[in-house]
Order: sequence, then structure tokens, then C-alpha cells
Amino acid sequence: MNHTELKGGVCAPKGFRSAAISCGIKLKAPERLDLALIYSDFPTVGAAVYTENKVKAAPVQLSSRHLKECEPRAIIANSGNANACTGAIGMEHAEAMAQATADALDLQKSEVQVCSTGIIGLTMPIDRIVPRIGELKEALKAEDEDAARAIMTSDTRPKACAIEYTDEDGKKIRIGAIAKGAGMINPNMATMLCFITTDADIEKHALVAATNYAVNHSFNCISVDGDMSTNDTVIVMTNGQAGNETITCESTSRTAFRDALKHVMLNLAKKMVSDGERVTKLVEVRVSGATTKDDAEKAARAVSNSKLVKCSWNGNDPNWGRIIHAVGYSGANIDPDQIDIFFDDLPACKNGLTSPTPIEELAAAVEKREFLIQINLNQGEETFTMYSADLSPEYVVFNREEYSLTRKRLEK
Amino acid sequence: MNHTELKGGVCAPKGFRSAAISCGIKLKAPERLDLALIYSDFPTVGAAVYTENKVKAAPVQLSSRHLKECEPRAIIANSGNANACTGAIGMEHAEAMAQATADALDLQKSEVQVCSTGIIGLTMPIDRIVPRIGELKEALKAEDEDAARAIMTSDTRPKACAIEYTDEDGKKIRIGAIAKGAGMINPNMATMLCFITTDADIEKHALVAATNYAVNHSFNCISVDGDMSTNDTVIVMTNGQAGNETITCESTSRTAFRDALKHVMLNLAKKMVSDGERVTKLVEVRVSGATTKDDAEKAARAVSNSKLVKCSWNGNDPNWGRIIHAVGYSGANIDPDQIDIFFDDLPACKNGLTSPTPIEELAAAVEKREFLIQINLNQGEETFTMYSADLSPEYVVFNREEYSLTRKRLEK
Repeated sequence: MNHTELKGGVCAPKGFRSAAISCGIKLKAPERLDLALIYSDFPTVGAAVYTENKVKAAPVQLSSRHLKECEPRAIIANSGNANACTGAIGMEHAEAMAQATADALDLQKSEVQVCSTGIIGLTMPIDRIVPRIGELKEALKAEDEDAARAIMTSDTRPKACAIEYTDEDGKKIRIGAIAKGAGMINPNMATMLCFITTDADIEKHALVAATNYAVNHSFNCISVDGDMSTNDTVIVMTNGQAGNETITCESTSRTAFRDALKHVMLNLAKKMVSDGERVTKLVEVRVSGATTKDDAEKAARAVSNSKLVKCSWNGNDPNWGRIIHAVGYSGANIDPDQIDIFFDDLPACKNGLTSPTPIEELAAAVEKREFLIQINLNQGEETFTMYSADLSPEYVVFNREEYSLTRKRLEK
Repeated sequence: MNHTELKGGVCAPKGFRSAAISCGIKLKAPERLDLALIYSDFPTVGAAVYTENKVKAAPVQLSSRHLKECEPRAIIANSGNANACTGAIGMEHAEAMAQATADALDLQKSEVQVCSTGIIGLTMPIDRIVPRIGELKEALKAEDEDAARAIMTSDTRPKACAIEYTDEDGKKIRIGAIAKGAGMINPNMATMLCFITTDADIEKHALVAATNYAVNHSFNCISVDGDMSTNDTVIVMTNGQAGNETITCESTSRTAFRDALKHVMLNLAKKMVSDGERVTKLVEVRVSGATTKDDAEKAARAVSNSKLVKCSWNGNDPNWGRIIHAVGYSGANIDPDQIDIFFDDLPACKNGLTSPTPIEELAAAVEKREFLIQINLNQGEETFTMYSADLSPEYVVFNREEYSLTRKRLEK
């Protein structure tokens, strides 16, 4: 399938507009963009995946309820405050954001998805947000750059992706997205958010299936600390403006759509992992030769999440001993004496024993900003791939003092 | 139960001796003690717990086999090389260490337990070890200090503990131990090893049950990175010289023994967590009010292992948001709106919402070298306690470059 890269993020597909303003939500940088709106000029079919964390932020609870009631026409999203662990008042604030957006756009409240990202446990400065939503609506335009910036927290750059592909019936279908989240860097402040728009004409069930597939093969395959945010959200809105023959669960065209959706999400997932000065490496961990998919996944996750493995990457150290050690405790079905490990294509370990590859060559592979680790369990045919990052001293320093500093700023 | 602290570690109980020498195994510090021997002058009953990692070092495989064949009379242990991922030659080396020890002490080979700790994937310098074991035997004495030092890798201090308690029949029973392992600091180099001696008279089944209980309530309740070593080993040898009435699975005296054994192991487990300059905090994470023990454990482990929570401790930051967030993804049965979190006795979060405790007071609690985090789920009666440590930038630096440096030193 040929995917043509486009500019424009969420505004690349036909009939979507976005806008952003600054409301002063971010205590450290009140002048920054912090409130974004994405709007479809036409009715949509929507799908979403929300965090599985049992501590769910108010906007996540509200958006999830709204999506059960009707299709989404707009997404209102702020950065700087997660509106999580904020109790009944938090829910009131999320509802107020939905209502103000609905009023400005002449929609039902439940047509609005609300997303928040930022610090946990602090009351939303709702009075700075609600009065500004009319102005935000007036700013709607067919450009995504500001919206991508307005959802950033610890991200060092805005993240967007858009592609076009040609459907079986010759119609061009576009998928666009913006996202925020900084993987290893600061997943507490930095909830993962991803908003996707597409002009494909697709049935609800087919969209839900494609969305779940794409999330499982992208955002669920990156190592973000093992920590799952209270606010993680992926929302897909599709408005049918491409004019293609409706994609259903039975049509052969569903595969091309699903793969295109995965392409967009994986592109953004990798950007999340590699973003930020505090991460120096993007590492693809590819496990093959597993008896079952589950075994392959267990091994890949254990390696991708091991603090010691991540430290070794940070030091350009091709320490395969730590890798086999993580595979060993992963719970995967393995025979240690049959495991091969490669850095890129260089053998570091064959049949569980050290390979004669010169250490300088292995170290040169790990020194690169992006490299591949291949782990062949030699037990079967199943594979699983994760995308991970190193663990740097700067990560720890960055994550040390957030809550006290924020409380002190607030109490001043 | 009254436990009197004693000096002497593994040599505090009657009829045990130990010794240590330097064989030049440690590449960075060849002059350091690196080979230890512990010997019982009398026949023993033994029990052990070995790593559950599927990648098991050769000495772990050999010792496990030996313990199935007969009771242990001696433990030979080296530091500097883990003899893990070393294949058939690794097993030959482990066997050679056992045989040389058996020869020196006039024992069967299978009466010897072999333990190794240090770097993974490198061949043992066996020719420096085997010829020295006769000398080691000659050095046996009723002091444990050298043996405790000889098993250290990244540990900054030797770890020992010994206690005495009075049995139901008035007999004094002693339990002594040495251990190595540096918790958060360097669990790859630093396999956890613990050797325990006791002069109690106890049946095999009762000893095995007490050992499993004590391990589960001590070493299995510390957060060592989530990484499980290929060499982790706990061995208990008991020689009956206290002259107490034999403890059986039915005798009421088994509880006192079990609790004393747990006391010794927990003492050493905490020493492991808090050892080293790179760890600045020892944190007790106590979860209460869980529906089931399993829920309490899941919540306690998620909090204890979260990188973000550990970073916040390092920065003296009372970030309860990260704690509730870890509880939320732990898989435990919870209601976020009923969770209370305390730093020591100071409420930080009540019913899932921020408490009015001044931030300075909370920060003062986290600033201490040892503090308590209490998490009440308010769902039931079950509890679980873990011992954890902070994550420091120095930890990452310390763990960056081990394998390359060692290979380069060897290849010089």
C-alpha cells in the first residue's frame, strides 16, 4: 500500500478545522498555547480508546460517556492541568468545558470530547478557560500547527502526521493526526493524547475494529516507563467526505484503511519515544522465534522495560547479558541455550553464549541514535516488536521535584 | 518473641566456621577478597531458594542438583564473575569448584553448594580459583567478617546479622547470616546471595517451610529494580548443635523459629535496599484496606517499582499523584475515590483528593533517609508491605558502561 505523506495533521482530511489559544493554565509558562479545539464541519462516526488505569481523570470519564451517547463533532483539549484526582468539582469543570464548546459550536454537549493533560491532583483554573472558548471557535482554520502545540506539556516539539492513500474504488482517503506525549521523558505530566481525523466513509463497527487494531500495534508497543497515565486517550473522527464506497467489516477495503491508520499511529508513537533531550536513543526490540505471540510479547516487554537494559543503552554499552537476563525473567517460554541476540545485524550472543564480534563493533551499533535489537528465541515462528528508549540521568533529575514546585507556585 | 542481637554472622551459631581469600577474580580490584567458604563441623539439614529466572547460572543449576542429592556441609562462593551464560565450560568450572572444595574438606562433591556473583557472560578464571581452595580450608575460623566481604560486588559494606532466642524448652537457638546484594544499585553485577546458618535442631520439612515463608516475607518484598538475577540464592544450613527438642511441622516451636528466620532475612533485605551512596532513601510502602492479599501486593509492588515514584522520592517530592496513579494501573481492585495516602502519619490524599497538609510538612517527611508511605484502599482488611528505594541520576551513571569496560580490560 502506497502512503503519501501530507502536511496539515488533523486538518489534512477534508472538512476538519482546528484552533488554539493561550489561557494561562501552565504555571511555569502561562503565555504558552494551552487550549486546542478540533472540529468537523460534517457529522462524523467516531471511535476512541481511553486509559485502562482505574484512576481515570474526570474528562476521560466524561468523554467515554459522551461517546456512548452520540458521535463526536468536536474535541476540546487543554494542557497544564490533567483534571485528575479532582473529585466532584473536577467533573463539573470537565462538563463546563464540554458545555461551553457545545454552545459556541451549536452542538449537543455529548457531541464534545474533552481531554486534559498536565499535573494531577490540582483544581482546574476553569474561569480562565470557559470564557475563552467563543474566541477559540472564531479562530478555527484549516491548519493544525497551533493545536499540536497547545496540547504539548514536556514535549520538545509538536507531533503531527498525515497521509493519503487511494482506495480500491480510486478515491483518495486522507488520515491526519496530532499527538502529545513524551514517552520515557515525563509520562506523569505527559499523558499520551492522540487525535485522528479522516475523511474516509466507514461504518462504526469497522472503525472501532480498525482503531483497536492500530492502537494495539502502535501505542501499546512503546515502552513508556511501565507507567500508564490517568488521562491517556486516542480519539478517531471520520466524516465520509472522501466519497469512497463505505468501508464495512466485510469489505476488502477495510485492510487498507486499518493499515493506514496503524501507519499514522506508529509514526506518532515513535515520535513520542524519541522526543526530548533526555532520551538519546530510539531502540527497536524485535523478538522472533517464539512459540506463541504471548511469549514473544512477554520477552519484548521485559527487555524494553528493564531499567538496567535502558541504562546500558544510555552508556552505549552492548550489554547482551542484561538482555538475556530480562528474557529469562519475562515469563516467556525459552531455552537459554538457544537464544541469539544481535545489535543491528551484529551477533552479540549465539546459543546463549558470547559471540566473537569485536566489542568496538557492537558498541558502535549501540552508539547510534536509532538501532535494532534482534532476539531470536529459536523456539517457534511468532514475533513481537516494541519501541523503547534509554534511561538517562537527566530523566531522573527532570522528574524529581514537580509536585512540590507546583504547589509552592500555587500557594504564592 | 525476644531476639537478642549477636555478632559473628554465620559463625554465631555453634559449629560453623568461615574463611576468605583473594584470588584475583575482580578485574577492577584484583587484590580484594573474592572467594569465601562456609563450613559446618557437623552434619546438617539444608534448604535453599534459587532464582526463578529461566536463565540460571551454572552454579545455581549445580547447587540445586546437589541439594536434591544430599544435605549441604559447605558453601563455596566467589565474587567478580557470575559464571552465567557460559555454557558447558561454565558447568565444568562450577563442578571443579565443588570438587576441589569436597577434596579439601573430605566431603562428597554433592555436599558442596557453589555460588558465583559478578559479571554475566564471561568465562571464569578457574585456574586462579581451584588451586587456592586448600589454602582457604586452612584459613577456616569462627569469624564471618572476611567471608561477608569476599561475596561483595557493588556493595559498599559487608552485610551480616545474627540473633539468639530461647526455645520453648529453654534452649538457646542461634541464627546467623551473611548476604550481598545492593538492591537498586546494581542488581546485574549484584546478584542477591544470602547464606544462613543455625544450630537449631529441625526436621527437613519444617526447615523448608520456614525458609520459604521467610524468603517470601523478606527478599520477595524488596524492590530491586524489577530485575531478577540469574544467580539469586538463599541457602540455610542447620546442624542441631543447640540441643533443642527437634522442631517439626507439628510442633508449636516451629512458629518461633520461622519468625526468627524471617527477622534475620528481613534485616538483611533492608540492608540491601539501603546500601550504597547511589540510593538515598529506604522507603516502607504499606498498603492496607485491600479486599485480598493479592490486591494489596499488586498495589504495593506497582508503587515500589514505579520509576516516576522513585524519582520523586529522590527529589524529596511528596508526589501522591504518582502514587495513586501507580495504584490505578496495578491491577488491584480499588475505588479511586476511597484511597487515602499518608507520608509517615501526614495525610497527603484523602478519598482520592488532595489533603490540606502544608506542602512543607509533607516534603520534610520525604526528605528523611527513611520514611513510610501508607496507602489505605478502604476496601477490606488485607495488607502488604514492600521496602523500596529512590532512583537517582547516579544509579543510571553507575549502570551505563559495565560490559564494554570489562570486555576491553579482558582483551588488553
